[in-house]
Amino acid sequence: MARVGGIEAGGTKCVCALGTGPGDLEIDAIPTSTPDVTIRSIVAFFKQREPVRSIGIGSFGPVDPDPQSPTFGYITSTPKKGWTNFDFAGAIRETLGVQVAFDTDVNAAALGEFRWGAAQGLGTFLYLTVGTGIGGGGMVNGRLMHGKTHPEMGHIRIPHDRVQDPFAGSCPYHRDCLEGLACAPAILARWGQAGESLPDNHAAWELEAQYLALGIVNWICTLSPQRIILGGGVLQREKLYPLVRAKVAELLAGYVEAPEIVPPMLGDRAGVLGAIALALGLDKSEPL
Amino acid sequence: MARVGGIEAGGTKCVCALGTGPGDLEIDAIPTSTPDVTIRSIVAFFKQREPVRSIGIGSFGPVDPDPQSPTFGYITSTPKKGWTNFDFAGAIRETLGVQVAFDTDVNAAALGEFRWGAAQGLGTFLYLTVGTGIGGGGMVNGRLMHGKTHPEMGHIRIPHDRVQDPFAGSCPYHRDCLEGLACAPAILARWGQAGESLPDNHAAWELEAQYLALGIVNWICTLSPQRIILGGGVLQREKLYPLVRAKVAELLAGYVEAPEIVPPMLGDRAGVLGAIALALGLDKSEPL
Repeated sequence: MARVGGIEAGGTKCVCALGTGPGDLEIDAIPTSTPDVTIRSIVAFFKQREPVRSIGIGSFGPVDPDPQSPTFGYITSTPKKGWTNFDFAGAIRETLGVQVAFDTDVNAAALGEFRWGAAQGLGTFLYLTVGTGIGGGGMVNGRLMHGKTHPEMGHIRIPHDRVQDPFAGSCPYHRDCLEGLACAPAILARWGQAGESLPDNHAAWELEAQYLALGIVNWICTLSPQRIILGGGVLQREKLYPLVRAKVAELLAGYVEAPEIVPPMLGDRAGVLGAIALALGLDKSEPL
Repeated sequence: MARVGGIEAGGTKCVCALGTGPGDLEIDAIPTSTPDVTIRSIVAFFKQREPVRSIGIGSFGPVDPDPQSPTFGYITSTPKKGWTNFDFAGAIRETLGVQVAFDTDVNAAALGEFRWGAAQGLGTFLYLTVGTGIGGGGMVNGRLMHGKTHPEMGHIRIPHDRVQDPFAGSCPYHRDCLEGLACAPAILARWGQAGESLPDNHAAWELEAQYLALGIVNWICTLSPQRIILGGGVLQREKLYPLVRAKVAELLAGYVEAPEIVPPMLGDRAGVLGAIALALGLDKSEPL
């Protein structure tokens, strides 16, 4: 199997890799600055490792992931300075002369877990990440989730008891959507302290689990996933897993059976491995 | 094209039809009583119209829609007396000696709208119905939504302002899930009057639109549908459409562009026509 390239483009760093899977990955992280500087560093990474026939990109967003669209592969309406309406896929394709596959960071991570990780053999599952933001991707009936554009799962509205939690929410668009209540910056703003420094017995974790469970219950009712992969920086706090599972079961109240809720098997390499899997998918002679 | 059968099985009636599409439907409604009595009436409808090669069923649920499962075609954990763990598809298949296709009522309706109605040409869309309950089905990437079982969209949790609306909710499982706040029986219980008899300027409609918009926003963020088909008894109140559209746009706050929100083009025949489409799909020589 020929080695292909993968790029997991995030708000603070772009992880680049070359390989065919988890066993042979050459990997490096590049700081995300302006598109010009960033693309130059990414190109340098791959130039040093030629030949590269194809590259997959899993990108922060919003993006246009529709191959039929004239702006396929663009980062669209991001507030990130300089990146608005940037033709990410085009820049890589033209500078390196490669085929490019392109999707959201979370759909890429979902594909990585599907190919090599916690979602192997499943047709309908979700990959959720809770960190600087809250994002979700996944598959329905064996296909990565796409629609008018792509899911923006973090921005769903959930019950917010302002007596129990007077924090107004940190989302600049919606204030107390799920992301605004439960992402890492929301934890920091609510408690005046980053989640990492809060003790295990702090009330923050019960509340965090409650919000994540409300989001997960809504996704279970909407999609009926066979499994939910839940990761991201906030989930480094491992006690969240049993708390979230218990609250999900309580909220479902026996009406629907909860699917398994598990950490990503590929850890923080899910995204870049998913980008590799996107690139492998370009070659019709390789199985998806 | 050979005529096929369709059954839309609901809690109060089963609509049976024979035909090939909207133009040639022979249709009749049978009261839903015990499975024995109901199946006997359904069988009589089709016996009088033989030959019938295949029948599609869109059923109230929960159901098992997985063709690989040993309980495929069963109604599973319904509270409806006598129907729990009833092999609906098997009863029709064996009594009439036909091939049977089986899915939820809302997925069937979604398929009907996809084939002949408001979802033609779309890959990712939702069909929602707001009546005795709230249900949703649809397609993602051109395939009907299935997973561990099937969506139970009405049971998502949304913000419920108990100062503005002290009504506790009517869902026996979750109290104030979306269905518990916004289905027809919730309107009746909250206002002491059925929706049909409330005037157009009653506060009920603003509140109803707010709850439906919160649900729809969550589905937009989760699935990014290209269009949302919104129907059911409660939507007979046509002023709800502009109200819901306005509130959806307000809640999305420009972060995501709202898809069109439209009534079913097939009206109350979407379900039974979808059941016909399910049956047509059994014949591999016919295009889906």
